[in-house]
Amino acid sequence: MYELGVVYRNIQRADNKVAAQLGALGSATVHEAMGRVGLLKPYMRPIYTGARAAGTAVTVLLQPGDNWMLHVAAEQIQPGDIVIAGVTAECTDGYFGDLLATSFQARGARGLVIDAGVRDVAVLTDMRFPVWSKAISAKGTIKATLGSVNIPLVCAGALVHPGDVVVADDDGVVVVPSALASDVLDKAVAREALEGEKRATLASGVLGLDMYSMREPLRKAGLRYID
Amino acid sequence: MYELGVVYRNIQRADNKVAAQLGALGSATVHEAMGRVGLLKPYMRPIYTGARAAGTAVTVLLQPGDNWMLHVAAEQIQPGDIVIAGVTAECTDGYFGDLLATSFQARGARGLVIDAGVRDVAVLTDMRFPVWSKAISAKGTIKATLGSVNIPLVCAGALVHPGDVVVADDDGVVVVPSALASDVLDKAVAREALEGEKRATLASGVLGLDMYSMREPLRKAGLRYID
Amino acid sequence: MYELGVVYRNIQRADNKVAAQLGALGSATVHEAMGRVGLLKPYMRPIYTGARAAGTAVTVLLQPGDNWMLHVAAEQIQPGDIVIAGVTAECTDGYFGDLLATSFQARGARGLVIDAGVRDVAVLTDMRFPVWSKAISAKGTIKATLGSVNIPLVCAGALVHPGDVVVADDDGVVVVPSALASDVLDKAVAREALEGEKRATLASGVLGLDMYSMREPLRKAGLRYID
Amino acid sequence: MYELGVVYRNIQRADNKVAAQLGALGSATVHEAMGRVGLLKPYMRPIYTGARAAGTAVTVLLQPGDNWMLHVAAEQIQPGDIVIAGVTAECTDGYFGDLLATSFQARGARGLVIDAGVRDVAVLTDMRFPVWSKAISAKGTIKATLGSVNIPLVCAGALVHPGDVVVADDDGVVVVPSALASDVLDKAVAREALEGEKRATLASGVLGLDMYSMREPLRKAGLRYID
Amino acid sequence: MYELGVVYRNIQRADNKVAAQLGALGSATVHEAMGRVGLLKPYMRPIYTGARAAGTAVTVLLQPGDNWMLHVAAEQIQPGDIVIAGVTAECTDGYFGDLLATSFQARGARGLVIDAGVRDVAVLTDMRFPVWSKAISAKGTIKATLGSVNIPLVCAGALVHPGDVVVADDDGVVVVPSALASDVLDKAVAREALEGEKRATLASGVLGLDMYSMREPLRKAGLRYID
Amino acid sequence: MYELGVVYRNIQRADNKVAAQLGALGSATVHEAMGRVGLLKPYMRPIYTGARAAGTAVTVLLQPGDNWMLHVAAEQIQPGDIVIAGVTAECTDGYFGDLLATSFQARGARGLVIDAGVRDVAVLTDMRFPVWSKAISAKGTIKATLGSVNIPLVCAGALVHPGDVVVADDDGVVVVPSALASDVLDKAVAREALEGEKRATLASGVLGLDMYSMREPLRKAGLRYID
Repeated sequence: MYELGVVYRNIQRADNKVAAQLGALGSATVHEAMGRVGLLKPYMRPIYTGARAAGTAVTVLLQPGDNWMLHVAAEQIQPGDIVIAGVTAECTDGYFGDLLATSFQARGARGLVIDAGVRDVAVLTDMRFPVWSKAISAKGTIKATLGSVNIPLVCAGALVHPGDVVVADDDGVVVVPSALASDVLDKAVAREALEGEKRATLASGVLGLDMYSMREPLRKAGLRYID
Repeated sequence: MYELGVVYRNIQRADNKVAAQLGALGSATVHEAMGRVGLLKPYMRPIYTGARAAGTAVTVLLQPGDNWMLHVAAEQIQPGDIVIAGVTAECTDGYFGDLLATSFQARGARGLVIDAGVRDVAVLTDMRFPVWSKAISAKGTIKATLGSVNIPLVCAGALVHPGDVVVADDDGVVVVPSALASDVLDKAVAREALEGEKRATLASGVLGLDMYSMREPLRKAGLRYID
Repeated sequence: MYELGVVYRNIQRADNKVAAQLGALGSATVHEAMGRVGLLKPYMRPIYTGARAAGTAVTVLLQPGDNWMLHVAAEQIQPGDIVIAGVTAECTDGYFGDLLATSFQARGARGLVIDAGVRDVAVLTDMRFPVWSKAISAKGTIKATLGSVNIPLVCAGALVHPGDVVVADDDGVVVVPSALASDVLDKAVAREALEGEKRATLASGVLGLDMYSMREPLRKAGLRYID
Repeated sequence: MYELGVVYRNIQRADNKVAAQLGALGSATVHEAMGRVGLLKPYMRPIYTGARAAGTAVTVLLQPGDNWMLHVAAEQIQPGDIVIAGVTAECTDGYFGDLLATSFQARGARGLVIDAGVRDVAVLTDMRFPVWSKAISAKGTIKATLGSVNIPLVCAGALVHPGDVVVADDDGVVVVPSALASDVLDKAVAREALEGEKRATLASGVLGLDMYSMREPLRKAGLRYID
Repeated sequence: MYELGVVYRNIQRADNKVAAQLGALGSATVHEAMGRVGLLKPYMRPIYTGARAAGTAVTVLLQPGDNWMLHVAAEQIQPGDIVIAGVTAECTDGYFGDLLATSFQARGARGLVIDAGVRDVAVLTDMRFPVWSKAISAKGTIKATLGSVNIPLVCAGALVHPGDVVVADDDGVVVVPSALASDVLDKAVAREALEGEKRATLASGVLGLDMYSMREPLRKAGLRYID
Repeated sequence: MYELGVVYRNIQRADNKVAAQLGALGSATVHEAMGRVGLLKPYMRPIYTGARAAGTAVTVLLQPGDNWMLHVAAEQIQPGDIVIAGVTAECTDGYFGDLLATSFQARGARGLVIDAGVRDVAVLTDMRFPVWSKAISAKGTIKATLGSVNIPLVCAGALVHPGDVVVADDDGVVVVPSALASDVLDKAVAREALEGEKRATLASGVLGLDMYSMREPLRKAGLRYID
């Protein structure tokens, strides 16, 4: 249940460098390093191919069809933040367009993640302001009802706290709690370090069956080959 | 992001009497009294018509296709609890059937709310063990991977803390934070007190337009009648 | 595109007796008799099994999350009407509950068809006030924005004019233009007249292949039997 | 890929007694006994609560919006069969109503499973002719294009061969290949035999944690209890 | 309910210059200027990024899986028209491909909006023939059943009259009644005129909170800032 | 129902030249030539625009959230194959990423068709390794449970046998049984041969109504023109 009508001004942001490094590793690697939790539902898609962003979460709780709190949130943005917005009911309206993007970008935001719709996507793409959303819709919104800013909230099925690291790219959006961020980074870096070598081995034609020593466990699990 | 592999044994449960009273008022009234937050998504439906339950939340985080943690949760149930389960990915498998229901009922559980599937629904209906779920599916689950019990989690889009009040009926499932439960009860009772009188007035043929004095605001908003 | 903020008070209602007779024939027969047009999308479902209603349409255009116009519509209801409501955006909120149902029933409404959610379904069922909706949700609505009453509108993909006949039952909801109502009734009655005899023939074990003389057309279409 | 325009008249039906016994055990138990394969997608729902059927599959491939082949299939029905119908494209039209049900019942069919819509559901319910479908829709169909009868086909994501056992109840629909039917029955009976005892143990308050000796594996998997 | 089997040859088209100017303003601005009505559901997506079209509506009612009427509609196309097609039932088949696009383009059509599927999208993209559709599907259609051309109809939840202005781009598809087109254009131009200045102000770092004087209304609505 | 835990090593592959020629004709033409069967559901989409592939099917049955069998399948790939994977339950997890793609590409695979999710789509796009999938998701999978390789299976609603021709492009994915491949190729070539001429005729402004001699059948079907 959410606290309505509040804006928390002082939040503990994760280290921005850590956020950037996690971003460079990508959502898939980070999600693995966290033990496969923290991923937003896969219906969240970037508005343009190749969109990438990583930063610290400014959370916004929105009311259906009402984007008032995005304006309130703009003031709380610090350079390196990503705004991540949940809605109190299912809604596909276009909450966000080129004017708000201009304002967010001027404040230093690295992107927006919103469990609803956005519009002006051609302009947003030209601006290279990355957005991950559930829908694209020309339908605008009103400014009438309060939500909240910087409370813990649910976005696309995932729990987000203000200040968490948000990593978003073509594969989806992952949230890393600020307290775990550097630990997750270490694990993600370790995973990544092995990937280059594995890729070269597989590219040479060696099978994963052999590289990962899977033949024996498969045999034990009962796999039978039939000629 | 979730903490995995932990069971919190000591949780602060909301007052069970308050939970029962909120349950008697129903999910719609309670949801209004909270300011229209705390409702699970409407895809959560009871397995039989007329199902009703209210109690304190024992939360369970499940892995997709794996119901191991429901057994772990059973031990944490106290009389008057409702088990409320989220899953780390979308899944419609049948996590819960008549055996688990027998165990839950023996422990005093008042029902189950699960963002996944259940099975043996004919037997569950005969047992009058109420369940709200996303799906019904004969597909069983394995017991291989840890989740957690009694952590804050997301169920069907709503944030739930262990010990919160859960009110579930034909209209849906609402979660009331334990700290707000008696305040919400007061507001809900106040709302309800007015309903009987209103119903009588409307039944006599008086219009809501008049009973709620809507004609003037409608006129100001620009409503035009055309003959 | 819709005209907003208007209420048409004088509408041409189809003959109520014709509406009742169409209702007795059922939505499937009426839909056939119309040439298979006029059906609302099949996601529209009755809130209780066995719900049946037929009447003349009072149309309501609603804004998302706002049920103000249902109160405005109540005044326009005459005995024998069915209120049929579209929304300007997708919404599953619970627009309608026991108080409005009491008012509608007092005005003589035969039911409600709404491309959104309703609540208090246990009470509505006890009242035997039939409703066809897209969703059931405890989430209430506000009263802030104008729509319209008795304009032509779209409900669940179908075009409805005020005064049209609405036939709703377990199989779905069909709209019959008032100008065509008696013609459709004649056709539907003719269809129905043949059904009893056909049913007896089929029950005796005669195949549809023979009763409908399908063997020759199937052979011509190229059907091959393989032993 | 499907062979179109053919009817196989001679199919190997599974033993009808085995089918009946599998039906008595229910879809969930049978699905478990098969190693968790063979289940139709959970969007397939019975048209009335408590519907149950088991029998041997007469398969029908339908074209979208065209129920011609259901008439062809009727002739191939033998007592104890269940007709199971796939469609070459997504369709929710009402392919089947009370007339066809009368014919199917006269031929000895135990039910229908159809990956599309049906209508006349109130009458079908009165007839106690059980149907599992994707949708309910008043929209009728034409009789113009050939499909096939008794070919292997896909229904709701599952592969079905003519003569397979079909078990359907409130939990869903499971298909058992005829060659495996008695083996699956043995396994299902063995599973079921243990259930009564387990239920009594759990009802007495013993936990699954202890009954299934889960505490040690949970500890090894790293589960931590926090007071 | 629809009139079937008719083609209206003489329709009142909105002024083509007005249509072009509305198109230049874009669907989001036009939708706002109309008071937020007239938008097709957001599942309607362009087949290629950057697709834009505006013109006058030639409406086509199609039967499921049958594209006969698109050929009939081709003859009614005048330079500057957009064909907008609804279907009498849900269907994702590929109704339209490169041959029809060649014909439509030769007739002067500016694009197609269809509440169903299309195919040959790689060729359509090369031709720069813009299409907005619900699906992409290789599945072709037959030519067997009549629909209608240039009747009022529903497309993706919106009511369209022949001759209306259709504005379509990356944000969606909006329909403007021909009688309102120049009025809507005036309003849209007025909105747009203010946007450039606003954008510059926001880009300079001024907040929407200040530019729109939102601080006082937010305070009155009860917004609290917590440090 | 599926056979689990088996790998068939010797499969009859369709002629690779035929597969390539079918691929050049495209999924829409091939689907027509087959009589409009064999198409996967249209939710299967390429991960990048312009993806095209054709080859012989290596089939893989996967368990939900488990990609072990993709490694087993890699060994069965021969140059010119396309791996086509079904899952025993609905799942959107990211089963396949850049490492497996490197391995598949090294083995000569032409692409992947998977009724689930994939990840690393930016890298896959750079590699030009084409994939058709139901979802994109950063969520990884485990390697714990057996499925099968080279059994007949269902992928996105279509039945696929190992060795069948798979044709995939922007319009979707079609499966051609190996026994029919050259016959389908002949028909598809014949269709295609006529297209160039038709396109030229339509581009010159001749209507399909005349080119296909539709005016008379339309008149007979009852089409009326109203001025």
